[in-house]
Amino acid sequence: MILVKDAIITGKKQDLLVEGNIIKKIGNISISEVSKDETEIIDGKNCVLIPGLINTHTHVPMSLFRGVADDIPLMEWLSGHIWPMESKLNEKIVYAGTLLGTIEMIKSGTTAFNDMYFFLDSIIKAVDETGIRSTIAYGMIDLFDEEKREKELKTAKESLEMIKNLNNSRITGALGPHAPYTCSKEILESTNALAREYNVPIHIHMNETLDEINQVVEKTGMRPFEYLNSFGFFDNVNTICAHCVHLSASEIQIMKEKNIFAAHNPVSNLKLASGVSPVLKLLENNIPVTLGTDGCGSNNNMNLFEEIKAAALIHKGVNLNPVAVIAKDAFDFGTKNGAKALNINSGEIKEGKLADFVLINMKKPYLTPKENIESHLVYSFNGVVDKVVIDGKLVLNDGKMVNIDEEKVYEIAEEAYFELAN
Amino acid sequence: MILVKDAIITGKKQDLLVEGNIIKKIGNISISEVSKDETEIIDGKNCVLIPGLINTHTHVPMSLFRGVADDIPLMEWLSGHIWPMESKLNEKIVYAGTLLGTIEMIKSGTTAFNDMYFFLDSIIKAVDETGIRSTIAYGMIDLFDEEKREKELKTAKESLEMIKNLNNSRITGALGPHAPYTCSKEILESTNALAREYNVPIHIHMNETLDEINQVVEKTGMRPFEYLNSFGFFDNVNTICAHCVHLSASEIQIMKEKNIFAAHNPVSNLKLASGVSPVLKLLENNIPVTLGTDGCGSNNNMNLFEEIKAAALIHKGVNLNPVAVIAKDAFDFGTKNGAKALNINSGEIKEGKLADFVLINMKKPYLTPKENIESHLVYSFNGVVDKVVIDGKLVLNDGKMVNIDEEKVYEIAEEAYFELAN
Repeated sequence: MILVKDAIITGKKQDLLVEGNIIKKIGNISISEVSKDETEIIDGKNCVLIPGLINTHTHVPMSLFRGVADDIPLMEWLSGHIWPMESKLNEKIVYAGTLLGTIEMIKSGTTAFNDMYFFLDSIIKAVDETGIRSTIAYGMIDLFDEEKREKELKTAKESLEMIKNLNNSRITGALGPHAPYTCSKEILESTNALAREYNVPIHIHMNETLDEINQVVEKTGMRPFEYLNSFGFFDNVNTICAHCVHLSASEIQIMKEKNIFAAHNPVSNLKLASGVSPVLKLLENNIPVTLGTDGCGSNNNMNLFEEIKAAALIHKGVNLNPVAVIAKDAFDFGTKNGAKALNINSGEIKEGKLADFVLINMKKPYLTPKENIESHLVYSFNGVVDKVVIDGKLVLNDGKMVNIDEEKVYEIAEEAYFELAN
Repeated sequence: MILVKDAIITGKKQDLLVEGNIIKKIGNISISEVSKDETEIIDGKNCVLIPGLINTHTHVPMSLFRGVADDIPLMEWLSGHIWPMESKLNEKIVYAGTLLGTIEMIKSGTTAFNDMYFFLDSIIKAVDETGIRSTIAYGMIDLFDEEKREKELKTAKESLEMIKNLNNSRITGALGPHAPYTCSKEILESTNALAREYNVPIHIHMNETLDEINQVVEKTGMRPFEYLNSFGFFDNVNTICAHCVHLSASEIQIMKEKNIFAAHNPVSNLKLASGVSPVLKLLENNIPVTLGTDGCGSNNNMNLFEEIKAAALIHKGVNLNPVAVIAKDAFDFGTKNGAKALNINSGEIKEGKLADFVLINMKKPYLTPKENIESHLVYSFNGVVDKVVIDGKLVLNDGKMVNIDEEKVYEIAEEAYFELAN
């Protein structure tokens, strides 16, 4: 059990008791109420306690690609830098990259993430060791080739089986067809069938750039959402669509009708010059918006507080509308909405919710005056958090990982980067 | 004297010697070369050493206004919140706000700032105590009233005299007429004359919103830069123009001809929904771009690393151009260009420059792999720095202010906020 004393919780100073992996009670809780031997007491004085953030679109092992190639056009970035490096990936490198990315997320208040990548055994090993929660998809790309398709589907199915057999409540599976311009209709149809069979969400890149949309339109005569909808891709599954930068009115209508989640990646979309997602239109249509950092190749960090601030700023600026995406909405994108998208019972501090939460010491210049802390978490905070509890366990204490030797992580990350870059 | 050993300096591991307030030598410097009694040895291992950042547009005491009123239209923000609170300002409150804002800047790597506000005695007291470098202007607004004009000019002139008599090389004066839509032609003409007389720069808000530009056009038949240029406002002075969000081709031409510095405030301009400055056009015309945070009422922090990242991102995204504002340019905006604008001999790590620099420990997930550190400082860093030297003196050591009791600052800042808000 964990008892947090004297933290600011949902606007007032109170205590919070964790039993197992659940928030059991919030209120005035005396230390005499709990068994001292079995309870870890956390001093929450001067701290605000908030739900852990949820990163709904990333490729966590790409933490090793941080800063390898900035300020160049997308195709040059992919074919000249990212793809050649990705061809050198192996289990050891992916493990190192996942450890690095995962401690970065935990240290900036993220308690769960939605990933799409390769070498899932290595990702799972690092996730298990660091204590974070995750939804993991094998990234499928068949490039319209039948042989490749069968191989990709086989790997995806094996991954789902493997994750199911882990019986680890922190790790769940998903299906990750890369995008409509890299995946055949057949693999996308099989994806829907598999998602229903395994009862897992689909995680896919949608409408990130104008170029890729034009490719789909030329090939199918339909825009990407229309095309996928034409063969029932969104039917009876939970779909998280990353990016959604360029959307027609008809596509927004499909998102609304099919209860699709948007994973908004404002920083990545700016950095790769993809554009700015029409988030105000999504909100008008009650389409749930969540937030992702994307991979570190295009951000270049995994600090979801930056996405929250970017989401609260960018739509005001480009729409010349100072009331667009208010602070509370941006914070919900990064917490409550992400939890719904990944079907995690978290994202809010309430009795009965999973004990996935974060403590932040407010004695900081950028969090003063402390009266306006809810605004500061969106518009001023830099993401440096003090304590993180995930699934009822303290994984970060006073800014340090509890179960991980951070020095060792930097060391193996540098070694892995050397292998990738040379 | 200060000797920094084994830091990454301009791309390689080397040492740096400070004598007085100047960088005396960079290279391989043995401890035996210096007098141990008179030299403070700083271990730079695992650290990158960079020039201190320069914030060219802020209102530092407004740190106390952080988060008081977000997500509302500009006029409601000003008349319903900011102005009523500003009417309660006094020396004690401004001192508290300046202390708070100044330690926030130092702790995020800023070593000099350009301010425009009221109660300059209090600002100077806090600047002196914290050890930061600053250029300080009394903010003049006459609202076209003759009596007010004389009073404002008198106060501004007294401030310049007072600052001159301080004989403090860290504190210099400037003239701060608020903006063309709040200042009469007469006060602006007198500003130019005073700036020449005292050999100080002019710091003014220009073209922040479409509304204010329309006001000037209606009144004068000219756009703001054209209007000011028509009576020689920019002649023979160094002018720093904050915002420059909406600019005509003819105004950009004036900026170029008159060697005007732009203080770009990307975060504030997004938050207040003012728009996005045409920075690419400024760069095409070789107009020097610098960076400001603006006041904490509209940002809501003073972390200039966020402005550097925002400047590197936003112009890519809104111009759909992935090579717009490359990392090196954005970093120069926040360092070298700011130094030129304020006529400070800093902004670069070179022998003979002022010893205004910052050390950042690279053993952080978001700064790994360390090979790409120059990219990380722009695209990944959160602004938490370890050591800061200003004017040859260590003012921040291992993240803590050397001469300031930070707890006490939070305490008096909360008291001052209470007085403002009630």
